[in-house]
Amino acid sequence: MTTQPVPRRRGRPPRTESADTRDRILASAREEFSARGYEKTSVRGIAKAAGVDSALVHHYFGTKEQVFEAAIEVAFAPALNAPNAVAAGPLESVGERLTRFILGVWENPATRAPLLAILRSAVNNETAAAVFRRLVATQLLRRVVAQLDLPDAELRAELAAAQIVGTAMMRYVIKLEPLASADLEQIIARVAPVVQAHLTQP
Amino acid sequence: MTTQPVPRRRGRPPRTESADTRDRILASAREEFSARGYEKTSVRGIAKAAGVDSALVHHYFGTKEQVFEAAIEVAFAPALNAPNAVAAGPLESVGERLTRFILGVWENPATRAPLLAILRSAVNNETAAAVFRRLVATQLLRRVVAQLDLPDAELRAELAAAQIVGTAMMRYVIKLEPLASADLEQIIARVAPVVQAHLTQP
Repeated sequence: MTTQPVPRRRGRPPRTESADTRDRILASAREEFSARGYEKTSVRGIAKAAGVDSALVHHYFGTKEQVFEAAIEVAFAPALNAPNAVAAGPLESVGERLTRFILGVWENPATRAPLLAILRSAVNNETAAAVFRRLVATQLLRRVVAQLDLPDAELRAELAAAQIVGTAMMRYVIKLEPLASADLEQIIARVAPVVQAHLTQP
Repeated sequence: MTTQPVPRRRGRPPRTESADTRDRILASAREEFSARGYEKTSVRGIAKAAGVDSALVHHYFGTKEQVFEAAIEVAFAPALNAPNAVAAGPLESVGERLTRFILGVWENPATRAPLLAILRSAVNNETAAAVFRRLVATQLLRRVVAQLDLPDAELRAELAAAQIVGTAMMRYVIKLEPLASADLEQIIARVAPVVQAHLTQP
């Protein structure tokens, strides 16, 4: 059942209608991927939830992997814009800014839900892991790496991210106690110096 | 279809037969949980794969959660015995021993597979997360904590574990580069001092 006409040619339809439809598809994609995980979500299901034809989803985004990446980018938007702020301050406190920023996204239930959906998909599916890898490496860490000016900056940034993401997983997903109930500022006070050491210690 | 008689009363059948049947059920449970994850695995499916009646699985292990815990304990056996060795050395190198031990279990494909299955189940299912939490907290970290003799030893051990498990996830599951291809000794050399600092730094 076609509820939206499928454009004959690639190319942008007039701005407003196009943007509305794209946003509706992305919102449905986020919901479907969150609820079912990457493997069990289909382009057909996303299209149905958005009230459009599957061909329109393919037209705007391409493959299921590309829809997933676009949906993650939207969910990650706060996480992908803030690294500018993380990178912008003095180098001697970059560890605290990065720690505060990532744990802050996890601490907020509204932003935690899509992150958790992404993490679940990435742990369960190789394609979703590849998308997660691209986003973390190229979007989140690249700006931190650029600030470091060290030959092993990438490895440093990844080990720093491992500490923060590992802490988030133990606190918010596995819920180990006393970590899960500890005050966020106490956690940041312990994790930030470690992250700083990974990033800048000779 | 009953292929094994169901014991009338609780209590151990003669040693050899009982141990063989238990082991066969556990092996089937490990395979089923690894292949399908916690949610999609059923006691009936485990029983069928082991060639026994479901009632016998319940008799030996109890609920599905308890079968899962027993299967994890077997898969974790190297990880659960070694903490004695981790705890046994001098305190100033406990960080390196813990790091080397956990990353060593992940580095070996034979022990990585069941760990990955457990991690996937724990990230996707609250009951599996609770089992993972109990095992990590009570079996793996308790012996490290006992060695520390500090009031905040548990939180320290959990943040240390977060660094190591986060590193394992980024290296073996998400496969971030250059971390995924880096030499294991290089990773240990960078992670161990951080783990040591979490555990013992004032």
